[in-house]
Amino acid sequence: MAQRGFTVWLTGLSGAGKSTLSVPIAQELRRRGLQVEILDGDEVRTNLSKGLGFSKEDRDTNIKRIGYVCKLLTRNGVVAISAAISPYREIRDHNRREIGHFIEVYVQCSLEALTKRDVKGLYKKALAGEIPHFTGVSDPYEPPLQPEILIDSERLSVDESVRKILDYLEQHDWIPRA
Amino acid sequence: MAQRGFTVWLTGLSGAGKSTLSVPIAQELRRRGLQVEILDGDEVRTNLSKGLGFSKEDRDTNIKRIGYVCKLLTRNGVVAISAAISPYREIRDHNRREIGHFIEVYVQCSLEALTKRDVKGLYKKALAGEIPHFTGVSDPYEPPLQPEILIDSERLSVDESVRKILDYLEQHDWIPRA
Repeated sequence: MAQRGFTVWLTGLSGAGKSTLSVPIAQELRRRGLQVEILDGDEVRTNLSKGLGFSKEDRDTNIKRIGYVCKLLTRNGVVAISAAISPYREIRDHNRREIGHFIEVYVQCSLEALTKRDVKGLYKKALAGEIPHFTGVSDPYEPPLQPEILIDSERLSVDESVRKILDYLEQHDWIPRA
Repeated sequence: MAQRGFTVWLTGLSGAGKSTLSVPIAQELRRRGLQVEILDGDEVRTNLSKGLGFSKEDRDTNIKRIGYVCKLLTRNGVVAISAAISPYREIRDHNRREIGHFIEVYVQCSLEALTKRDVKGLYKKALAGEIPHFTGVSDPYEPPLQPEILIDSERLSVDESVRKILDYLEQHDWIPRA
């Protein structure tokens, strides 16, 4: 009777569009009758990872915690959408193994484009050396080698990106067709 | 279409029977078609609270994190069962407010009876001063003032306790009748 749970794991640099995509996807999946929970980097840090910083170890712990919560939701039939940067491949793969029903979406955007957009002014500061451990500038980002879905957010609009993700989920029978 | 989520919050001293009760309750609820997740103190500490100790502040953080996960599960239609000691009233009440659908079960057992049972030998050690911050011995436990359900685990068997909890959940229409 229960729906089949799964995790949509968005990964990519800050500002690439992870949170922006998570909202309309969640909305559409709810419209189709699914239970959906978004795990956003900032909210999760407040509730699960207060006190953790941005060293590799602390980032890994934070991402594993998000993965643990996604696992609990997924195995209870909920769709979990993670929108945290999650820079390290090894930890994303750890979560993939733990969760099982795992769809990795690489939201790709070049540093040049991000610096140009720079909605929050963070890249300017990071490039000026004012923010230590800033992913993509002063901290590493390891792109997925074989993500289930690749979103080129420099070329695709939000609508097109959402459409591409929903198409994948439909084609692989994760969600009912519209 | 989705089931109505809620949280069964078991609280009580170590050894009072929280985990022991959580398993058959979860089993019976699953038998009735519900999605159920047990959040056990030890497992949660490993996955969400590594590095936290047993000071009041660290305990509070741990219990709030469990509460946060229960909230996510509950609002997605899952039954969450927490089986952590959760010694402080204020934090349990915080979780009650956050979660909303919250059924507090006080699993009561006197220190005398616990010391007599002492399955893991912890009370003997704690009373000898070998375990610091041991709830009920060298650390406070604040019993609920108005729990939805009171289980006197010195007088009730496990079966009777489970029956009492299921009766409450049925009578308040949280779960379908057997």
